[in-house]
Amino acid sequence: MLRAPHQLEIQERSVQHPGPHEVLIRITSVGVCGSDTHYYEHGRIGDFVVEKPLILGHEPAGVIVAVGSDVHDRHVGQRVSLEPGIPQPFSSQTLHGQYNLDPAVRFFATPPIDGVFCEYVTHPAAFSHPVPDALSDDAAALLEPLSVGISAVRAAGVILGDRVLVAGAGPVGLLVAQCARLAGALDVVVTDTRDDRLDTAMNYGATGTFRADNEPSPEGPVPGRGYTVLLDASGAEPAILAGMQRLAPGGRVVLVGMGADVLRLPVPLVQERQLHLTGIFRYANTWDTAIRMVEQGHVDLDSLVTSRHGLDDVAAALTAGTRPGALKAVVNP
Amino acid sequence: MLRAPHQLEIQERSVQHPGPHEVLIRITSVGVCGSDTHYYEHGRIGDFVVEKPLILGHEPAGVIVAVGSDVHDRHVGQRVSLEPGIPQPFSSQTLHGQYNLDPAVRFFATPPIDGVFCEYVTHPAAFSHPVPDALSDDAAALLEPLSVGISAVRAAGVILGDRVLVAGAGPVGLLVAQCARLAGALDVVVTDTRDDRLDTAMNYGATGTFRADNEPSPEGPVPGRGYTVLLDASGAEPAILAGMQRLAPGGRVVLVGMGADVLRLPVPLVQERQLHLTGIFRYANTWDTAIRMVEQGHVDLDSLVTSRHGLDDVAAALTAGTRPGALKAVVNP
Amino acid sequence: MLRAPHQLEIQERSVQHPGPHEVLIRITSVGVCGSDTHYYEHGRIGDFVVEKPLILGHEPAGVIVAVGSDVHDRHVGQRVSLEPGIPQPFSSQTLHGQYNLDPAVRFFATPPIDGVFCEYVTHPAAFSHPVPDALSDDAAALLEPLSVGISAVRAAGVILGDRVLVAGAGPVGLLVAQCARLAGALDVVVTDTRDDRLDTAMNYGATGTFRADNEPSPEGPVPGRGYTVLLDASGAEPAILAGMQRLAPGGRVVLVGMGADVLRLPVPLVQERQLHLTGIFRYANTWDTAIRMVEQGHVDLDSLVTSRHGLDDVAAALTAGTRPGALKAVVNP
Amino acid sequence: MLRAPHQLEIQERSVQHPGPHEVLIRITSVGVCGSDTHYYEHGRIGDFVVEKPLILGHEPAGVIVAVGSDVHDRHVGQRVSLEPGIPQPFSSQTLHGQYNLDPAVRFFATPPIDGVFCEYVTHPAAFSHPVPDALSDDAAALLEPLSVGISAVRAAGVILGDRVLVAGAGPVGLLVAQCARLAGALDVVVTDTRDDRLDTAMNYGATGTFRADNEPSPEGPVPGRGYTVLLDASGAEPAILAGMQRLAPGGRVVLVGMGADVLRLPVPLVQERQLHLTGIFRYANTWDTAIRMVEQGHVDLDSLVTSRHGLDDVAAALTAGTRPGALKAVVNP
Repeated sequence: MLRAPHQLEIQERSVQHPGPHEVLIRITSVGVCGSDTHYYEHGRIGDFVVEKPLILGHEPAGVIVAVGSDVHDRHVGQRVSLEPGIPQPFSSQTLHGQYNLDPAVRFFATPPIDGVFCEYVTHPAAFSHPVPDALSDDAAALLEPLSVGISAVRAAGVILGDRVLVAGAGPVGLLVAQCARLAGALDVVVTDTRDDRLDTAMNYGATGTFRADNEPSPEGPVPGRGYTVLLDASGAEPAILAGMQRLAPGGRVVLVGMGADVLRLPVPLVQERQLHLTGIFRYANTWDTAIRMVEQGHVDLDSLVTSRHGLDDVAAALTAGTRPGALKAVVNP
Repeated sequence: MLRAPHQLEIQERSVQHPGPHEVLIRITSVGVCGSDTHYYEHGRIGDFVVEKPLILGHEPAGVIVAVGSDVHDRHVGQRVSLEPGIPQPFSSQTLHGQYNLDPAVRFFATPPIDGVFCEYVTHPAAFSHPVPDALSDDAAALLEPLSVGISAVRAAGVILGDRVLVAGAGPVGLLVAQCARLAGALDVVVTDTRDDRLDTAMNYGATGTFRADNEPSPEGPVPGRGYTVLLDASGAEPAILAGMQRLAPGGRVVLVGMGADVLRLPVPLVQERQLHLTGIFRYANTWDTAIRMVEQGHVDLDSLVTSRHGLDDVAAALTAGTRPGALKAVVNP
Repeated sequence: MLRAPHQLEIQERSVQHPGPHEVLIRITSVGVCGSDTHYYEHGRIGDFVVEKPLILGHEPAGVIVAVGSDVHDRHVGQRVSLEPGIPQPFSSQTLHGQYNLDPAVRFFATPPIDGVFCEYVTHPAAFSHPVPDALSDDAAALLEPLSVGISAVRAAGVILGDRVLVAGAGPVGLLVAQCARLAGALDVVVTDTRDDRLDTAMNYGATGTFRADNEPSPEGPVPGRGYTVLLDASGAEPAILAGMQRLAPGGRVVLVGMGADVLRLPVPLVQERQLHLTGIFRYANTWDTAIRMVEQGHVDLDSLVTSRHGLDDVAAALTAGTRPGALKAVVNP
Repeated sequence: MLRAPHQLEIQERSVQHPGPHEVLIRITSVGVCGSDTHYYEHGRIGDFVVEKPLILGHEPAGVIVAVGSDVHDRHVGQRVSLEPGIPQPFSSQTLHGQYNLDPAVRFFATPPIDGVFCEYVTHPAAFSHPVPDALSDDAAALLEPLSVGISAVRAAGVILGDRVLVAGAGPVGLLVAQCARLAGALDVVVTDTRDDRLDTAMNYGATGTFRADNEPSPEGPVPGRGYTVLLDASGAEPAILAGMQRLAPGGRVVLVGMGADVLRLPVPLVQERQLHLTGIFRYANTWDTAIRMVEQGHVDLDSLVTSRHGLDDVAAALTAGTRPGALKAVVNP
């Protein structure tokens, strides 16, 4: 429970009963996200401010220990991955299939909604996705960042034959690259400013890499042709602008990474090449695909885990991401 | 013929013979575009520099006076509207249906290609579109700016029920607004900094207007809902940024107007609302639709013409656009 | 209340209380649909069989007389149009924006769910859409068939410049034609086997008509070009097949009308012209657009009403549609 | 040269000179297609009748031996794969990016246009695609059927996560399956009536197979969920209809295979599930992707070749496809 920046404490609370459409879940694994770390360091992200004690963590997996009275398609003992954002049932956005954009969405670990660095949580059954045995608890937790990757390639409309440039080789960048590859991109080139990350990228779907800060940088995968898609997982303006210069006419840009508040967009470039730019906010309707990708062995989420922590060790988990070679920390309550 | 900024001269040239797939056209009307004026004032637009004498004008209509040996679907005496950009026949962009993006496109009045402030020109038959009697010569010329409007609403994907905000009420803004209305937008609100232009907009498809510089500005057409589309015909960064703030989740932005070199894009807004932004470069496959829109009376292009000039009066035509109340000048050779 | 084919009776029931998210509505107008008539005549539609007494009617408007405890955006006295199909809140289809395809949807007057030929009904607030004063009670009721028209043009992807052929000039065909016109179709040609219906079509958006059974039938609106879209509101195989022959390459077909169980699809035609064919099942997310279309005067639903009936006159209402010149009957409880 | 059904002869002709935009190619390999065999057996396909002697063969690869005067991006000695259909340069379909639908397209081995079972042919440079060394001559020839597979998955809009059912495990079905897999389908189940073909399918991208004629047939890959896409490469009505029954709401059908003249389409199924059906006619803009797929090792076209023949052995090549285990025959002139 985060009281203030760098102040965590453990609190005993009584376990809640699930509502009619909910299940009660014992948490087994929770991935640590950069946003958790950001709240821990700064006590806020943009307009979201931690004003009263907040439980962090929003990438949870667990086991059902009780089901609500109207839940008929889940059972005690079932292992589940929890989708962390719950929209209003009949909001306009939900009825349009964009429930992630519902302004009334309740999302774990986004003030004032508590997260899941805890032992038990109640959650709507519909957002508690059963996972097959082939997925470990950690993999079940990490379906959340994988969903970001799926969402990115959907927003870009990646199809068979695309030439994709991925900026940023952190955990999200790696998953974005892998999703792009599985979605039909024949060339997936990853760029970063760190060599170790570029090496890692070659194990996660990249067909090539180059240092973002090298001059001159290499031509694209097919000489004389630009990339068709730029997926930015860096949040760094120079990387985005350099990537856009490499796009072919009609190229598509998806801003996945957070960080840049303002992007100085070159208007003539956007017009003369008729580029398309969009950004993503979380995800919708991704879990089924994410589960199947891991179950079939296309994505190895377990290999992303570089450290494991107990509930009494959350502070270490929250700062583990900065160590060299670190990809994902998980908390196993 | 533009020799240098503000230096025009008339030159006698021999009339060319049409190639096998071309027609020879006697020009009857040419619209004057802001880019013509810009070349006249500054001798360049961005990377395009007038280095040797250039004929301006790229919105032409005329009458066929000779047909090439392999042209079987055009005849002498036929009135035509000329599409000014000719791509390479089998370029990659042409074969993909985006012939406007072909880097080898030859476009009237774009250095070093001459334009059509002249009496005769040869042109490929396929880009010399026959027009019905219902269209005047001036209307046939102004199918070119109307094509920009069509291209804008296509890029935005305007469909039945959209709520469209148009920034800029110059000639292009007016045509964009009218196209948006015809494409199914039920609300088309136009904004500008000049009251006379806002009044005019109400005659060209706008369902409402407001002053761009007013504070506070009015809520959108449906309280509590944003616009679904922003079509910028102003090229002004403040107008674009203010318009983007008014967009609903999933809103679409099309940058039509030139002017801003850099747009300081608010990345969190783009991400949190999953906005889509693109720009257009001219048009492709618009003439059929443009002709039908005018023929059926949905768009009155003649009413846009606020001054007419002869070939000996091109200098006046090129500066006519700045006069109060001026919309389009045309040159009738 | 329908007990068996041709057997209606009136029954007194106690008025229900609205649930937390519901409102209680006093019904003011209900449109009569062909499916109501079909149940009345035959006691079934396909697999849906009237096995116990059923209240018919699914195109209702009314006034809110009570609101549930958790409803904060509706109030007593508000006039509303009722969307008749209620999906499961978090079903897969609902979360994908296709709530009309949810197999668990509860739809008025579809056995065993009662309809609205009655005085009061409870309904979820989210599906009770407030209507402005500009809409009459009857118009508010007829937003339901208008929604079918919106759904049809969305499924066809009608955009600016389409050339649309509408087969069938009954009430749905007329609304489909009008929606196509408003969605940007420049040519909307309606065909039917009855001259009086063709005359009516010219008042509802049609730019042309022809007798479906005439030989030879006229060429399309633009000589040498086919239609780009066929919207079938006839359910008649000959009309669909004849219409498909008239489509241009890439043409789109939407099967709106019910009636044909099997369509003998010409496979070589579908392949050689790369035609696209789909069907629609009711609608999703249409009411906002429907309301705005009527409020702005683009569609005159009141003019469709050709007879009005009381609750004691439902039998007459159900058979009114077969009289010459009849378009829509409404029941005003 | 086909004179009449089952009558082939070899003829000496002089080698043509390439036109300004053409290249002269020495043919090295030509795939044999079912349509070649059909002309050989029956002298016609539908409306296309062999009325004068016709050279068959339309899946060619070769080496450039001369280049036309205006060709600057090809050179003598370059190995190329020939795209067999040449549209009119500025036809409406070409300018819309659908050049395969141009009614004036000239396609190899489609009467009266000769094919490529010969030693030399002239061809437009733009449709003579250079291939890298990684591709064998046979693989370069078989980019043509691979293009059909690419076209099929594009028409279906296959994206990451799709569950695809492929009907028919002949050469085209195998390539369709492989393209679906590479385009992001996580489940690609192939069905056929022959066990040996099902075994082969498992080597070409299939994640599962079942006998089309088995009753009861297995449930889809994800229990309780239908397939999202049906790609028919069988041309057999029972396979198409059975496949459609297995589709989820919103499912998509692409008719790739020829054979069925009429498909008895179940209209209520199409409407209630809002299925989308289309067909494909050849391909457009596929070679770049096809080359890259093979170059990167995702598709092994050489393994499809089950017999090779000389020009004096074309009759055997044309009938080789019916032998057990046969996939593709090629002619190496």
